[in-house]
Amino acid sequence: MSFQPVSAFDLPRYAGLPSFMRLPYLGLDDAATAEVDIAIVGVPWDGGTTNRPGTRHGPRQLRDLSTMIRPVHPVSGVNPFSLRNVADLGDSPVNPADVADALDRIAGFYGKLRSRGITPLSAGGDHLVSYPILKALGADAPLAMIHFDAHTDLFDSYFGGFKYTHGTPFRRAIEDGYLDPRRVVQIGIRGTMYDGADVAWGLEQGVRIIRIEEVEDRGIDSVMAEARSIVGDHPTYLSFDIDAIDPAFAPGTGTPEIGGLTTREAQRMVRLLSGLNLVGADLVEVSPPFDPSGGTAWVGISMMFELLCLLATSPATLRRKT
Amino acid sequence: MSFQPVSAFDLPRYAGLPSFMRLPYLGLDDAATAEVDIAIVGVPWDGGTTNRPGTRHGPRQLRDLSTMIRPVHPVSGVNPFSLRNVADLGDSPVNPADVADALDRIAGFYGKLRSRGITPLSAGGDHLVSYPILKALGADAPLAMIHFDAHTDLFDSYFGGFKYTHGTPFRRAIEDGYLDPRRVVQIGIRGTMYDGADVAWGLEQGVRIIRIEEVEDRGIDSVMAEARSIVGDHPTYLSFDIDAIDPAFAPGTGTPEIGGLTTREAQRMVRLLSGLNLVGADLVEVSPPFDPSGGTAWVGISMMFELLCLLATSPATLRRKT
Amino acid sequence: MSFQPVSAFDLPRYAGLPSFMRLPYLGLDDAATAEVDIAIVGVPWDGGTTNRPGTRHGPRQLRDLSTMIRPVHPVSGVNPFSLRNVADLGDSPVNPADVADALDRIAGFYGKLRSRGITPLSAGGDHLVSYPILKALGADAPLAMIHFDAHTDLFDSYFGGFKYTHGTPFRRAIEDGYLDPRRVVQIGIRGTMYDGADVAWGLEQGVRIIRIEEVEDRGIDSVMAEARSIVGDHPTYLSFDIDAIDPAFAPGTGTPEIGGLTTREAQRMVRLLSGLNLVGADLVEVSPPFDPSGGTAWVGISMMFELLCLLATSPATLRRKT
Amino acid sequence: MSFQPVSAFDLPRYAGLPSFMRLPYLGLDDAATAEVDIAIVGVPWDGGTTNRPGTRHGPRQLRDLSTMIRPVHPVSGVNPFSLRNVADLGDSPVNPADVADALDRIAGFYGKLRSRGITPLSAGGDHLVSYPILKALGADAPLAMIHFDAHTDLFDSYFGGFKYTHGTPFRRAIEDGYLDPRRVVQIGIRGTMYDGADVAWGLEQGVRIIRIEEVEDRGIDSVMAEARSIVGDHPTYLSFDIDAIDPAFAPGTGTPEIGGLTTREAQRMVRLLSGLNLVGADLVEVSPPFDPSGGTAWVGISMMFELLCLLATSPATLRRKT
Amino acid sequence: MSFQPVSAFDLPRYAGLPSFMRLPYLGLDDAATAEVDIAIVGVPWDGGTTNRPGTRHGPRQLRDLSTMIRPVHPVSGVNPFSLRNVADLGDSPVNPADVADALDRIAGFYGKLRSRGITPLSAGGDHLVSYPILKALGADAPLAMIHFDAHTDLFDSYFGGFKYTHGTPFRRAIEDGYLDPRRVVQIGIRGTMYDGADVAWGLEQGVRIIRIEEVEDRGIDSVMAEARSIVGDHPTYLSFDIDAIDPAFAPGTGTPEIGGLTTREAQRMVRLLSGLNLVGADLVEVSPPFDPSGGTAWVGISMMFELLCLLATSPATLRRKT
Amino acid sequence: MSFQPVSAFDLPRYAGLPSFMRLPYLGLDDAATAEVDIAIVGVPWDGGTTNRPGTRHGPRQLRDLSTMIRPVHPVSGVNPFSLRNVADLGDSPVNPADVADALDRIAGFYGKLRSRGITPLSAGGDHLVSYPILKALGADAPLAMIHFDAHTDLFDSYFGGFKYTHGTPFRRAIEDGYLDPRRVVQIGIRGTMYDGADVAWGLEQGVRIIRIEEVEDRGIDSVMAEARSIVGDHPTYLSFDIDAIDPAFAPGTGTPEIGGLTTREAQRMVRLLSGLNLVGADLVEVSPPFDPSGGTAWVGISMMFELLCLLATSPATLRRKT
Repeated sequence: MSFQPVSAFDLPRYAGLPSFMRLPYLGLDDAATAEVDIAIVGVPWDGGTTNRPGTRHGPRQLRDLSTMIRPVHPVSGVNPFSLRNVADLGDSPVNPADVADALDRIAGFYGKLRSRGITPLSAGGDHLVSYPILKALGADAPLAMIHFDAHTDLFDSYFGGFKYTHGTPFRRAIEDGYLDPRRVVQIGIRGTMYDGADVAWGLEQGVRIIRIEEVEDRGIDSVMAEARSIVGDHPTYLSFDIDAIDPAFAPGTGTPEIGGLTTREAQRMVRLLSGLNLVGADLVEVSPPFDPSGGTAWVGISMMFELLCLLATSPATLRRKT
Repeated sequence: MSFQPVSAFDLPRYAGLPSFMRLPYLGLDDAATAEVDIAIVGVPWDGGTTNRPGTRHGPRQLRDLSTMIRPVHPVSGVNPFSLRNVADLGDSPVNPADVADALDRIAGFYGKLRSRGITPLSAGGDHLVSYPILKALGADAPLAMIHFDAHTDLFDSYFGGFKYTHGTPFRRAIEDGYLDPRRVVQIGIRGTMYDGADVAWGLEQGVRIIRIEEVEDRGIDSVMAEARSIVGDHPTYLSFDIDAIDPAFAPGTGTPEIGGLTTREAQRMVRLLSGLNLVGADLVEVSPPFDPSGGTAWVGISMMFELLCLLATSPATLRRKT
Repeated sequence: MSFQPVSAFDLPRYAGLPSFMRLPYLGLDDAATAEVDIAIVGVPWDGGTTNRPGTRHGPRQLRDLSTMIRPVHPVSGVNPFSLRNVADLGDSPVNPADVADALDRIAGFYGKLRSRGITPLSAGGDHLVSYPILKALGADAPLAMIHFDAHTDLFDSYFGGFKYTHGTPFRRAIEDGYLDPRRVVQIGIRGTMYDGADVAWGLEQGVRIIRIEEVEDRGIDSVMAEARSIVGDHPTYLSFDIDAIDPAFAPGTGTPEIGGLTTREAQRMVRLLSGLNLVGADLVEVSPPFDPSGGTAWVGISMMFELLCLLATSPATLRRKT
Repeated sequence: MSFQPVSAFDLPRYAGLPSFMRLPYLGLDDAATAEVDIAIVGVPWDGGTTNRPGTRHGPRQLRDLSTMIRPVHPVSGVNPFSLRNVADLGDSPVNPADVADALDRIAGFYGKLRSRGITPLSAGGDHLVSYPILKALGADAPLAMIHFDAHTDLFDSYFGGFKYTHGTPFRRAIEDGYLDPRRVVQIGIRGTMYDGADVAWGLEQGVRIIRIEEVEDRGIDSVMAEARSIVGDHPTYLSFDIDAIDPAFAPGTGTPEIGGLTTREAQRMVRLLSGLNLVGADLVEVSPPFDPSGGTAWVGISMMFELLCLLATSPATLRRKT
Repeated sequence: MSFQPVSAFDLPRYAGLPSFMRLPYLGLDDAATAEVDIAIVGVPWDGGTTNRPGTRHGPRQLRDLSTMIRPVHPVSGVNPFSLRNVADLGDSPVNPADVADALDRIAGFYGKLRSRGITPLSAGGDHLVSYPILKALGADAPLAMIHFDAHTDLFDSYFGGFKYTHGTPFRRAIEDGYLDPRRVVQIGIRGTMYDGADVAWGLEQGVRIIRIEEVEDRGIDSVMAEARSIVGDHPTYLSFDIDAIDPAFAPGTGTPEIGGLTTREAQRMVRLLSGLNLVGADLVEVSPPFDPSGGTAWVGISMMFELLCLLATSPATLRRKT
Repeated sequence: MSFQPVSAFDLPRYAGLPSFMRLPYLGLDDAATAEVDIAIVGVPWDGGTTNRPGTRHGPRQLRDLSTMIRPVHPVSGVNPFSLRNVADLGDSPVNPADVADALDRIAGFYGKLRSRGITPLSAGGDHLVSYPILKALGADAPLAMIHFDAHTDLFDSYFGGFKYTHGTPFRRAIEDGYLDPRRVVQIGIRGTMYDGADVAWGLEQGVRIIRIEEVEDRGIDSVMAEARSIVGDHPTYLSFDIDAIDPAFAPGTGTPEIGGLTTREAQRMVRLLSGLNLVGADLVEVSPPFDPSGGTAWVGISMMFELLCLLATSPATLRRKT
């Protein structure tokens, strides 16, 4: 592959400009993007956040920590950089001063990626960023989705009718036909509830909601087998909200809920998705101001490496050039 | 019920004055207290602390984080605010400059609550505050108690004979007849020991001490079934020291011990106490200076919501008004 | 006066619910608001922030620290609570999910305060919140303004034409006639510049811009005398951006600039404004996620007490009741 | 001199056990104490604290940072360790569970130091620890005192008559005849006031109170000359509350007040006290939980080195042995 | 035993000079060292660190937290201080400015301990410090080793041929004959890999590498039984890298890897090594700048107490004097 | 000029890859380097640090904060990017595992810059990195130097003869003929001293040492006029150790000394050096682990912008291309 990470045996891991996983950094207009199979992209925006903000700073902190990632997966032995051309394509355009304009800019950026056949691995940003990504990737036909999260994000509206917040992206995506609700599975849901309207609506549409207690009771293997069967070989999106993981492991997020997944569980669960027909993935809701230590971003980027290995071996991902 | 939390769909959760769980805030002399079934109360005092102080700041940080609590329990579906009138009755009077006077003030305050038939859910403060609470609630007859903690708090005295510290409350309460030791069970005990005199004394009195290793070996269901059988349908107090939970999850406390409960275990354990004849509960030893991030307080208030759901469905709790 | 802070000799300063300066907390519909002369109000909103967010959490942290304020000014001897009825009127309604709606809600809230003759002392929030406040207070005639800040906040637009950000409030307020630019003085301006268009526009309108170097060269007395002469006895608003103060003293803000005012200078400067015809004041841009220690909020609330003493002795402030 | 600090050219400054300034560490019963001229002593106690606790941890953090101190004063050229035998005599006995007993233990410990002719340089602890120290040192005749602080600490009582808090030590010491109020000068006083009763009482007794504004207006030289003239050549105690210094420089304290001294001012002021007849000194109110970075302790121990140089050249300090 | 920790019932745990576990602190030239059976020693050095430094500060923070350790093991009932004479022998000499000289100084120090028959329990420093310790302890015959870590530390060289880093100690120790690779077992290995050359080399030499997934799949009892069988009754060294434990529990380290051991697992695993023929042990890679809260050091020193109990009951440890 | 920073009106300042001041990022082998006049370069290395490490992380944190820099100097109006082609040339090669090799790599890198006529503005790293930079820039003839620092860095050796630490760079550079000591001025020196040998040696060589007290007594204008006269129009290097600035403003450094410069003083001092014949400059000793907030790096990069404006207007800096 033409794009390789800088080696830590040459340049120490804390040195140099922190592109994602020390990969080449390309602008969208760069000629070399023609060779890119998988793009790692930041979406530095938190305009959908109803509570504690800060995820706009997520991509930068994730990039910072990402220079500690080494190229080979310890269990599968996959080296995604030897299978696909992976590059850092920078941050999507955003607008911190306007929600609608921001959603348009993001959807536009991902539309360009899609038109070039580039599979995106995205770093949020709050969870509303998944909506314009799905709008681009699911423009032609609704996608399946595996969704790790403490919350359903299936609410209807906030503050008297406002429809676009990080509590509503998947309701919007289902309503707009970018997701097929019968092929959507949510895993790790927990925490106190308002009135359950989000859950009720999701169940009506056919969404499968697997609460954390069910994960614990049935075990990871059983749950993930079910998740695989729900999405089948459909084109599938994977959305990972960092708050799926317990705040002891990942405190830097805006809406933590206690009693979450351990990182060991999360890694095991994601690894069981190998071979799915993934068309894109994201890791969202890392909020650096709530964890300046970078520990949460370290969990986040470690999970993104897991997602990258899935994408690099997904049938849906192009392989342009060796 | 007349008292309802402010809705997060109207006022964002970070906004407004942080009363406990966004409930009405009443003074003890307020006429509306006549309708209160359950009072959430702070006891901002750490005069019994022998090591690292700071729990006097616990109630305020717990209130701050409590505005992220939503009204419905995700597993049982219980909405405590629709079952009972719950209010924030402010902080108990205390005295940071005198131990004996502080204990008197706290006991006096809880005596008033008891005389009005109000069930208290308290936020410490260090664990010595449980002593004057028990003095008020157990004034007529000794109570049973389920006690989550890393430490027995059954020591006799410190520093050459001083009897009132956060290592001694339950010895005092047993000696004074506010607790029936044969109906006391302690869960989660661990950490290095002085000479074991606290454990030996407790066992002699009939206290059941379940160490963390026993929890792990037998499993949660077995241990909690035993705990239920120990207290039976006796009037029971529930005291939850945040250090029962592992410091990775709850670092903001004065005497952490590694190898503790996860929050998932703690939630599961407390949920298994549903239906007991609870007359009060507390969550103590959250020390904000040792966790300015609020993560520990978030664990604490999340556990307090679990306790509140138990109290709201306890046969001992009044239901004054719909 | 009917409204007095809770005494720290009765209840320790860290105890109890943290209303502003331990004052009575009233809702806008509370009958007692009829007696209120000065309202302390939070505006928990940062939707105009172009860089680092978090000021939506400002009001709560300012309230938290405000319980350390004592009632008497150490130099003037003024006790504002014995001169006017001061109360905490809670937080203005906001909308974190929509800029325009948020501005409307805030302007509406302040319109009500104005219609009742209540002088507002506000706690931001980002600096865009000053715009709807000025819209309410300056609805009839343009106000004079004394403005402490590192930045002019006179920019035209961001991100391709977006007009409402925390870099534009005073341009909008001047354009809309809520401020009389010839009676506006900005003090403490500093930091690297884009192209100076903000400064140029301000100067054209007649705004007096006093950079930090001029403060240092001429001295505080001279500068503040000029500021007084600019506003004269006109109805005047005072806006204090915490970033006027050096980040060593007040790091918790989104756009810090080194080389700022010390707190000693800031106190001295504000004290020299005694007797002006003030109709309102605000303290904005305290961002708790960037200073969880509360040190910045302590500076902020200490300055708010200075502002409160000015308002309590302003000819424009009502005195309804002794 | 027999006692010398470990050299940083041999053992790095971060290494080894952190005794004060890397000096020999002796117990009170150690034979070598017979040679000690000046003892550096910790008083790890905060039982008099009415607001934010934590100064009990002060001595350990001050010792930790003290290993960065080098032996020679940069301006005067004084090397205190070549003039006097200085040792770390450990921590005074205390009792975190009882105020009266703690005061007795501390007074007893300092009585022993005094009976052996050892001059104490103490590290608090809260400011109430100065009271038992003065009780020991001023047992025969009232002392003069130079007192740096944001607060007068001349209050009468708290919480309904409680006489011993960190707001009352010097009132008690004056009442009990350990201090001669006409030879007491307080420097740096500032911050909001309750009702001024503390100041009024102090002025009646003849205490000279120099507020921060007066320091700024008159200049350091003038103020310190007056301070010297007040104490003259009387046996004098020097008490330095870290909150005399501005919280930007020393945030780790329980009752910060903005607008304080810079460290440059503080160093200059203390250096102007050279040659006074000092019989002891303390540095109090460093609260590590409110500054885990150690920055405040670094200010504190740097000021303690200034105090040590004063003590090492004071006519009142013995020189037992070369 | 002649050496006993200071009791927390006499002197509060936060008070006094923080020697390891409040034990007597002796210099190597102190006559009393003749009675020492087990020395706790710091190695404050991080010159082998290729990524994030700071472990040079480990020993001091570990000593600080160690004063919270009580003398009796809660499960085994072992009181190591009643079985052996344990003392704090200070810090090994080091050199932060030269790798080779530092390794020589450390090896020399441990050579002296060995020649006096003192069993060392060491606190790092980075993992390269294990190399000179093994050089001293394994000088005559290769040792067996049980090694807890996220990484193999079996790399050959860094940055173009540099052989001594914290990624290479055990390769060097095996090459130099201080370790018998067929009696070396590594437990907890995980994290992304470079190219697997370290693992391949280790396997070739006969090292047994047990990854975290294998621990989880087989269970602790099975894995530890195998570990015991590998070392048998050979003289064995135990090296515990704090990064074996998950960063949620122990974030203060230079090369964290998510998905690690919980502290409960780690305690259980170490306890299963009771009775082995241990000749020394270390706990390394605690980096205080990356966890100023001390939580990681608390985990570290708690594990060191587990190791101490193993050493105190090891057949290889002398018992000189009761 | 061909190289311009990304505009904050297009891409928010927190977004995108953080190259220095949002400039183009070029490798040394990139053809575009032929157009570079001034290179901003990181030297991520702290192998010379004798006390608290971490400055190896300085360049990355400085880059992170540098995206908040705007292009125009607020006082002089200089826009360095319109005067010279400025680019981020990445980090110098280093070796964290070997001091001598690291010094060689750095000197080699700077030799290449010099041979291409590129003026370097460097970000440390510890102060020893100035030595290999001076070795490259002063290879032909000794340079003059203006040196801001709390310490002289003129020590001879540490730990028994080790010559290369961050306390020795300028002694080595003078000895080796890279600096002309009679044209070296050190400003801001302060803090406790070992024995003064460093100062004595410097004075003997003709170095002018201006302590902080002299700065305060004489005033900035006088001191800086003298500094200018010392270096005259000689080719001059400017080295700025962040610890010249007081730790209240810049706590994130390894060897803080209280009583330092304010940022306002530092900016004023550096601005008075306009027009000197500068051939390079550095800003060193920012240690992110000791200030994760980034406040110190913000001071550091703000000072680097001041240095950049000096370099962009220095007669010694090329202007290759408009």
